[in-house]
Amino acid sequence: MKVVRVTVTPIAFRDPPLLNASGIHEPYALRSIIEVESDNGYVGLGESYGDAPALAIQQQLQQELIGLDPFKLNILRETVARVVARVTPASAAGAELAPGSHASKALSNAYSAFEVAFLDLQARSLNRPLVDMLGGALRTEVPFSAYLFFKYAEHIDSPYPPDAWGEAISEEQIVAQAKSMIDRYGFKSIKLKAGALEPEHEVSCVKALKRAFPQHQLRIDPNGNWSLATSLRMAKLLDGCLEYYEDPTPGLEGMSELHRQTGLPLATNMVVTDFDEFRRSVALNSVQIVLADHHYWGGLRDTQTLAAMCATFGLGVSMHSNSHLGISLMAMTHVAASVPNLSYACDTHYPWQEEDEEVIKGGKLPIVDGCVRITEAPGLGVELDHEQLGKLHEQFLSCGIRARNDVRQMQRYRPDWETVKPRY
Amino acid sequence: MKVVRVTVTPIAFRDPPLLNASGIHEPYALRSIIEVESDNGYVGLGESYGDAPALAIQQQLQQELIGLDPFKLNILRETVARVVARVTPASAAGAELAPGSHASKALSNAYSAFEVAFLDLQARSLNRPLVDMLGGALRTEVPFSAYLFFKYAEHIDSPYPPDAWGEAISEEQIVAQAKSMIDRYGFKSIKLKAGALEPEHEVSCVKALKRAFPQHQLRIDPNGNWSLATSLRMAKLLDGCLEYYEDPTPGLEGMSELHRQTGLPLATNMVVTDFDEFRRSVALNSVQIVLADHHYWGGLRDTQTLAAMCATFGLGVSMHSNSHLGISLMAMTHVAASVPNLSYACDTHYPWQEEDEEVIKGGKLPIVDGCVRITEAPGLGVELDHEQLGKLHEQFLSCGIRARNDVRQMQRYRPDWETVKPRY
Ligand SMILES: [Mg+2]
Ligand SMILES: [Mg+2]
Repeated sequence: MKVVRVTVTPIAFRDPPLLNASGIHEPYALRSIIEVESDNGYVGLGESYGDAPALAIQQQLQQELIGLDPFKLNILRETVARVVARVTPASAAGAELAPGSHASKALSNAYSAFEVAFLDLQARSLNRPLVDMLGGALRTEVPFSAYLFFKYAEHIDSPYPPDAWGEAISEEQIVAQAKSMIDRYGFKSIKLKAGALEPEHEVSCVKALKRAFPQHQLRIDPNGNWSLATSLRMAKLLDGCLEYYEDPTPGLEGMSELHRQTGLPLATNMVVTDFDEFRRSVALNSVQIVLADHHYWGGLRDTQTLAAMCATFGLGVSMHSNSHLGISLMAMTHVAASVPNLSYACDTHYPWQEEDEEVIKGGKLPIVDGCVRITEAPGLGVELDHEQLGKLHEQFLSCGIRARNDVRQMQRYRPDWETVKPRY
Repeated sequence: MKVVRVTVTPIAFRDPPLLNASGIHEPYALRSIIEVESDNGYVGLGESYGDAPALAIQQQLQQELIGLDPFKLNILRETVARVVARVTPASAAGAELAPGSHASKALSNAYSAFEVAFLDLQARSLNRPLVDMLGGALRTEVPFSAYLFFKYAEHIDSPYPPDAWGEAISEEQIVAQAKSMIDRYGFKSIKLKAGALEPEHEVSCVKALKRAFPQHQLRIDPNGNWSLATSLRMAKLLDGCLEYYEDPTPGLEGMSELHRQTGLPLATNMVVTDFDEFRRSVALNSVQIVLADHHYWGGLRDTQTLAAMCATFGLGVSMHSNSHLGISLMAMTHVAASVPNLSYACDTHYPWQEEDEEVIKGGKLPIVDGCVRITEAPGLGVELDHEQLGKLHEQFLSCGIRARNDVRQMQRYRPDWETVKPRY
């Protein structure tokens, strides 16, 4: 079996005005959709970062991967490494929220994008679900969490009508957002993206959520936007109502000190984002839960390796997300189904994407009782809708965004907005 | 694809009177040969420990694995765990040289045995080499080392005529053994199994080897039979002629202190034998090279995970061996071919096994220029010779040995022999 065609299609889809530590989401999120076709007529799918530096590498790889055997992932990695060494992109500003745009992550990002498609191709050629290439499913339902955001009602100079979620700034609005998301999807865990507003207000919102959803597991993620002192003060105010405390403060040292002083389980997708940082975190006891993300950890098998390392070093495993569509959701679900120690509900931005902007046939995947199901369908279990792909590619071409920049977007609302880390 | 038959056949093959820290090899080494047949007519092969406790679990598993899907390795592991929990064997005396006989290793040992056969079955059903189930080969030739032993000319009350290697006690005899092995197989690295005779004499032998083979990489492995003081004294005498210093002294703490005082790269298959010990070794900086062994680390994929962990923590990877035949050799070779950071020649006892006692068709596998080759042949690339299997099984039944015991065997030569650790 040989690869005969690789197609990387950048797409843009509507993204709500969600607030975060850097600023605010732009009106469109970028992704790339990857198709890898084999000489025996199968097509493996992948979804990855659509920002310019990541895209440049993926597009360079289109030709280089022709002729590869989809089972030979080690050769894929060598090939990607060669191309990445040739095309070294610079890091974009505000990249800390989109780990995909770090230059140092270029190899594992690009490899991940194609590894998923290669594994999908393997599985489809065997008429097996992709998870069988990962040792098979330990569970068929993978739990995700309700991912709440502070948000504005609509984008500045919005190119499209406001979303249905409305404004969420006050406690009441956040609780209403949670209620609406939980009613619809049945999530059993709640994550609040924080680091955007005053810490005391954000913590009040968590406490309001706790009152409204006393049985739900709660998390708050200020994206490293709180100083150690603020993180300590908020830890006191939060008073044990968290499942875990996600990236309150920046840096391995800060997280280590915070854990030492509070004993709280700290989770991260910011201070442990590669195996080198994993090693340093172990030495400092910086975090207790690593949020895996196959898009930048090096694909589905490396995510399994990360999970095994977490088991070895007594760390928990959960899963990070960026704005994504159904191919990524299914890749996350397949690997999560194979990982024995994935003991927390995974993050997903999926509820924030619009019903009419999915690239897979049949539209958005169902989330029922907070879970995504894997089936016995071949590969990832989803098929590409080329009409939708074309539409979202057109949107990419016309939207004008080429690399995520939440800072610049916020400056359109507040010209005095600056990158200050930590802000609080 | 479903498993329809699992057959575990214990075998015994002639083993020379090789000296080591515990005592001396018995006249026969035990192994088990595993066949796993699928409903579509393929047979996957495995080779594992043939000692009674390991065998008992493997035999219990014969029925339990019927109906499993060979791709669902996670279900295999759960099944093995269930059976191991039911059949908990006691550790055998002298087990430290045969990690397979530790009770605590029962799960990973038994899982490993069948994981190889399951992967072999996957690969054969796809008409691919097994290494393709591990991401494909990064090299087709895997280097092994010349594994030298002090030895007697023949076994006490030997049930068969002396081997062709003759006695090896003196410097001259060890150099002659090395010359003979290197002439025949082309090895580029030399390992001397030590901990058997006086340390000063063993070190003199290493220095004689260095003079005779100045271009070869040298290693000495006293199997933890030297005190820290002896290990320090010998390190001085060895004066930089080692590639690595393998398990001179027992315990993670002793190895850590030895490295701290000498700066020498220390290798191990004794103090880091599972992921828990890996974690403790990292904390203590006990070893710099881990000798992987898929037979007790949890199979070929877990060996890859171990190698990834070694890369993360800046450790080297080499490979440990016990007395084995060609199925194990090919399993070792396939996984070694897939591991990017396997930067040392692997150990193998294979040259010590007799030409007429291989269970694979065509007899013993060639070692050329010190390397074993993997080919594009399906699975492990070897087929079982059932006539040979029957012969070695008869030998198992008649040889009277049921669990390796090098201590008791040495007591037949020297009734005052006792287990003292470290002896020197
Ligand atoms: Mg986060
Ligand atoms: Mg050893």
